[in-house]
Amino acid sequence: MLLNNKLFDNLVNAFRSLPGVGKKTAERYALHVLSSTEEEVNAFVETISRIRKQIKRCSECQDFSDTDPCTICVSNERDGDLLCIVEKPSGVMAIERSGGYRGKYYVLNGLLSPLDGIGPDELGLSRLFQKVMTRKVKEIIIATSATNEGEATALYIAHQLKPLGVKITRIAHGVPMGAGLELTDDYTLRQALEGRKPLEG
Amino acid sequence: MLLNNKLFDNLVNAFRSLPGVGKKTAERYALHVLSSTEEEVNAFVETISRIRKQIKRCSECQDFSDTDPCTICVSNERDGDLLCIVEKPSGVMAIERSGGYRGKYYVLNGLLSPLDGIGPDELGLSRLFQKVMTRKVKEIIIATSATNEGEATALYIAHQLKPLGVKITRIAHGVPMGAGLELTDDYTLRQALEGRKPLEG
Repeated sequence: MLLNNKLFDNLVNAFRSLPGVGKKTAERYALHVLSSTEEEVNAFVETISRIRKQIKRCSECQDFSDTDPCTICVSNERDGDLLCIVEKPSGVMAIERSGGYRGKYYVLNGLLSPLDGIGPDELGLSRLFQKVMTRKVKEIIIATSATNEGEATALYIAHQLKPLGVKITRIAHGVPMGAGLELTDDYTLRQALEGRKPLEG
Repeated sequence: MLLNNKLFDNLVNAFRSLPGVGKKTAERYALHVLSSTEEEVNAFVETISRIRKQIKRCSECQDFSDTDPCTICVSNERDGDLLCIVEKPSGVMAIERSGGYRGKYYVLNGLLSPLDGIGPDELGLSRLFQKVMTRKVKEIIIATSATNEGEATALYIAHQLKPLGVKITRIAHGVPMGAGLELTDDYTLRQALEGRKPLEG
């Protein structure tokens, strides 16, 4: 019986380390592992530890990659004049999926958060500034998320880069495509009104 | 960049083998693994494969256990007159959690499903029947789930065990405690009406 079984609890706790996984879900995963054959479980764990070793950070853009530099950093088809700054590797994936961007990226892998002791040094922002100075970047698009920390990080980067004379833009915030006003939160709606554009008719 | 990266896709697919995990959730788990240190990932996979090896089936009741026979099967405090038949190890956990049962268990690890080619032989029902015959079981409580297959399996077991003269019961189906009638489905409500009991006032 698995209730109050220490080994089973350890297995459940291992799965609870995954993001967004509570006790019930972790139990379901743990029971699945026990019901699987040893070969299946070995293949599962082998895949995880092997790929964790094979995928590293690109030393240019700090994104995850199995090559260094990554395919985007070495690509001649990507516009080196544009540098999009995102918080996490998932941001690069989201923008690439949208298909609306042909420039290069820089992944912060975090946001400024003074309360958590994460300042410009901890975030390695000097590496970003160095990159902007040595490359011929013409426009920096700051695509950190629209949270307090995301906004603060965007403002800090913009402030630091201003003396370089490079164009700095922020992605637009507003009503998501397909969404009704009644389902849009107040803050987003205010941003959407402030960011209104002339409509050519 | 991880979009269309074959290694990353393999990692995502490994997580998709977990129950109820779709593409988005698997991606989140995969990104978490890449963001964790190698030590953290090694500890995670080591826990899974070690505990998968340590927890086996109890040869008596077929439940998961790290001892054989399991703690319930060897316990003198559990009433051997009562045998509760459940579909899966999670059923034993749920009943033990409820605290309302002091008998022993037998885990089918499946249900009869002729369309999937799972008959009495595949389910190893003869082992259950053998156990009932050789032990002095006085009452068998069939606690398979209230699905078509659960009901069919319950009826089949009851039919096969009838000649032994043992008392065979089925757990009650009805309106869950705390639930309103308007949220209870039709089938459950019919079962609740059929299973009505005299109220001592």
